[in-house]
Amino acid sequence: MLFGAACAMFFLCPESFVPMQIFCDYHLEPGPLKILEESVRPHKLIFPIKRETSVLATGQTDPSFAQADIAFGQPSVASVLKAERLGWIHLTSAGYTRYDTPEFRAAAQARRLIVTNSSRVYAEPCAEHLFAFMMAQARKLPIALQTRGGSDTPQWAQLRSASSCLQYQRVVILGYGSIAIRLIQMLAPFRMEITALRRQPKGDETIPIVTAEALPPALAAADHVINILPDNADSRHFIDEKRLAGMKPGAIFYNIGRGATVNQDDLAASLHSGHLGAAWLDVTDPEPLPDDHPLLTTPNCYITPHTAGGHPHESESLVCHFVENFQRYLKQTPLLDRVI
Amino acid sequence: MLFGAACAMFFLCPESFVPMQIFCDYHLEPGPLKILEESVRPHKLIFPIKRETSVLATGQTDPSFAQADIAFGQPSVASVLKAERLGWIHLTSAGYTRYDTPEFRAAAQARRLIVTNSSRVYAEPCAEHLFAFMMAQARKLPIALQTRGGSDTPQWAQLRSASSCLQYQRVVILGYGSIAIRLIQMLAPFRMEITALRRQPKGDETIPIVTAEALPPALAAADHVINILPDNADSRHFIDEKRLAGMKPGAIFYNIGRGATVNQDDLAASLHSGHLGAAWLDVTDPEPLPDDHPLLTTPNCYITPHTAGGHPHESESLVCHFVENFQRYLKQTPLLDRVI
Repeated sequence: MLFGAACAMFFLCPESFVPMQIFCDYHLEPGPLKILEESVRPHKLIFPIKRETSVLATGQTDPSFAQADIAFGQPSVASVLKAERLGWIHLTSAGYTRYDTPEFRAAAQARRLIVTNSSRVYAEPCAEHLFAFMMAQARKLPIALQTRGGSDTPQWAQLRSASSCLQYQRVVILGYGSIAIRLIQMLAPFRMEITALRRQPKGDETIPIVTAEALPPALAAADHVINILPDNADSRHFIDEKRLAGMKPGAIFYNIGRGATVNQDDLAASLHSGHLGAAWLDVTDPEPLPDDHPLLTTPNCYITPHTAGGHPHESESLVCHFVENFQRYLKQTPLLDRVI
Repeated sequence: MLFGAACAMFFLCPESFVPMQIFCDYHLEPGPLKILEESVRPHKLIFPIKRETSVLATGQTDPSFAQADIAFGQPSVASVLKAERLGWIHLTSAGYTRYDTPEFRAAAQARRLIVTNSSRVYAEPCAEHLFAFMMAQARKLPIALQTRGGSDTPQWAQLRSASSCLQYQRVVILGYGSIAIRLIQMLAPFRMEITALRRQPKGDETIPIVTAEALPPALAAADHVINILPDNADSRHFIDEKRLAGMKPGAIFYNIGRGATVNQDDLAASLHSGHLGAAWLDVTDPEPLPDDHPLLTTPNCYITPHTAGGHPHESESLVCHFVENFQRYLKQTPLLDRVI
């Protein structure tokens, strides 16, 4: 559990006490709720009438929200813009699509409203999920787990020679954030050639960075194209017919960012044509896909149902990450995972 | 491809020339066969009438074998013991079960016969295959790839919280050789606690080593038990009812060594009882399992058909590894992957 020790050791000094109302619309079981209550005391938690059960749900406006100084969960943009006392929103997800608009950013800046997300909580499971996709594809697990032929059969010989190694292969990561940074650490023993796309290179990156303009040669060389892009106006359908056609024949595409960043018709067409080797998706648009969606019957398309961020004690991790940031908020030091 | 440069640059000096006969019963396609012929010239390759198509097959005695100085492939123990000129056998597998007996070792020592295997060729794909098993289990891929429920369903919530991370977990590796060494490198970014069982600790290990006597506490603490044991008299049914019962409830068992090192009835019973969390096997006894074998319908038992060693250019890698050792043999320097 992240920040477990920090949670347990957290006590407020009397002189720093300023009573605040913390709106929480994320449903917590008694255990993590107790951690939260004890960690923010004597500040007050306020709850909506109906709490969200998923970190991915969109909270609706709630009357109690107007009194909130801080929000922890998934408050709606409309309710945030109406809540005049609100100074900080801490999201229970890594994604923050609905806040990532020029309009919201302008409104937040005008009001000095801070938005943080929980990307640190999800970096490990999401990077491990991506890695699981890469390894399962390399070792052809979906086929190998269904194959029973002996070593004298052509099917066996074909499967064995189709099984590959990640070592020395080339990777392009679209989106350089917490997940990418962790994935790059995990890939280090495989001596791969890794390049990443970052909206605004900052110079603190550990691998070569390209912007969208310089992406085509990297895409053309990559054995693995990993999409961790958030969903916003710039990234919508970023993966389209043109970029898919520009990938190396046989390349493998992965998406654990947001489904809307991919034109799914173009993806299905590329897989059907045999140009793309396979696609591994944890996110789709919509989620789940309707029963008759073409991607469900597209060859070499493997889909998990947005479980990349899942891990044991997820609620505890989210609470402790919030509490870590709450301490920083009280001390007026920079918050972790600030996105706006 | 391993040792590609070494292969291409290999030329014999005239003064070291001693004509030898190299028996090869491993079937090679024209490309790797050409590499082999050019690399050993002016020494002579001799072939059996019917060559083996799999690295796992057992070669039968062949009349031409009696003339061999060196054997590259899978010669039978009987033919090796009869071939008086033979000084070195290089096996095309990592496994060497049938030579790993006190009788054969004594006969080899008396005749100064050297046996090397191809474990270096298989370390990377086998370690990656193991890693693929571990990641697929952690991220629950077999279930997740079949689940389409949305984020408001109990199935989804259950799957998401059952998905786990390798980070900080405990591992026991049974068998400390090339594959284990490579796997330990791969696991480094996950900050796991790793212990290995080694028949004869040598002091060059990078992690804590235990012998069979000191294994029980390590087994009891491990989240992951990884079996890479070779098959010999000591290791047969090494994983039995007692050792399975001594594992932590929910532990995951992996086997890419040899099927005979596991009592499969005991394994099935442990999985059925729910004590063991899951088993991932690339090897079974026999291979493939008969259609009515209980393991095929045992819950949480995932089997790939002995493809862990598979990788593109497998034949080229095997040839180049042999050629590397052939150079050493000519120069009388220590051979790589010597097992006897």
